[in-house]
Amino acid sequence: MTLQRHIIPAGHGAALRLARGQHLRLIDPEGGQSGDLFAVSQDGRQRLSNGRTFDFGGTLYLSTGNQLWSDESEPLLTIVADDVGRHDFLYAPCNDDMYRIQYGLTDHPNCYINLTAALRTLNVPPSPLPTAFNFFMNVEIDTNGKLHIRAPRSRAGDSMVLRAEMDLAIALSACPAATCNGGGPTKPVAYEVF
Amino acid sequence: MTLQRHIIPAGHGAALRLARGQHLRLIDPEGGQSGDLFAVSQDGRQRLSNGRTFDFGGTLYLSTGNQLWSDESEPLLTIVADDVGRHDFLYAPCNDDMYRIQYGLTDHPNCYINLTAALRTLNVPPSPLPTAFNFFMNVEIDTNGKLHIRAPRSRAGDSMVLRAEMDLAIALSACPAATCNGGGPTKPVAYEVF
Repeated sequence: MTLQRHIIPAGHGAALRLARGQHLRLIDPEGGQSGDLFAVSQDGRQRLSNGRTFDFGGTLYLSTGNQLWSDESEPLLTIVADDVGRHDFLYAPCNDDMYRIQYGLTDHPNCYINLTAALRTLNVPPSPLPTAFNFFMNVEIDTNGKLHIRAPRSRAGDSMVLRAEMDLAIALSACPAATCNGGGPTKPVAYEVF
Repeated sequence: MTLQRHIIPAGHGAALRLARGQHLRLIDPEGGQSGDLFAVSQDGRQRLSNGRTFDFGGTLYLSTGNQLWSDESEPLLTIVADDVGRHDFLYAPCNDDMYRIQYGLTDHPNCYINLTAALRTLNVPPSPLPTAFNFFMNVEIDTNGKLHIRAPRSRAGDSMVLRAEMDLAIALSACPAATCNGGGPTKPVAYEVF
């Protein structure tokens, strides 16, 4: 069986549905590129929550065996494989305000727009969307709690796999922030469903 | 001038309004007790956001000089004094699900109920309420990203002061989770407005 690999062009988003038990593979085709994932239960009642994930999981660094929890305290996704081992679940998705305030840029592509647009196409409420799971995003926390955004650790072809624990609407974004992706032009991400 | 000190009994919540420029002092009267704070703009349009606070502030450990940001990327509060120097902004407020799943307890007092009830009395929408600012809550992050909840560092009489950067509705809770407060019976917190 050959799986269909969906490419999300640099700076763009994608929308998909997962049935309970299906798997989603997130792929960095070229290396050094991160993306954002947000998940909402198909019925629209439960949304991804980093605060509850930290509470139930007890860790900031999620990898194989960890789960992503909802704001109603149910697991939405389980990480079942992970080539990369470092992702971020602290930073709000990049957005118009962030590009304006931090970089003086207007009309920059951003993860918030990509994710909310994707959720709209799936007919689930686009907001609230406080924090997405920033796969392959590499944030170093120093001993004073200061955050340092580093280049992603992912090499070309690296991936992670998540299993849906309920029927889900999923929004993805190939992050267009140079800062989060090694500083140069940003690149595509890809996914497969099986 | 003698300020009025408001006591929030152990496990209870409180609601107040702050005008722009007013100060809120959060006090641990007995020592070793943490609390939750959530802030919403008086017009209901902007809510406290840890993800945007981490993005604009670049640190997990907030203290004097740091600001608490809204989900619309404006500062809501500035920390202008802090005897304690360690607070948490990672954990979702304790809630019915958490007590049920982690401790097998039902009908336990919790910060989520206290905070949402307080916001209702102020006529601002009680949700979404993903993560509150957990003042005096002491979470150690080890080098593997694992989270360890320790006893608060606050001693009897310690306080912190926050200045309102816009007109705000504020919800407070004296956290009723033994785990977050040294393991014994939980205690009151207090506040002053000036």
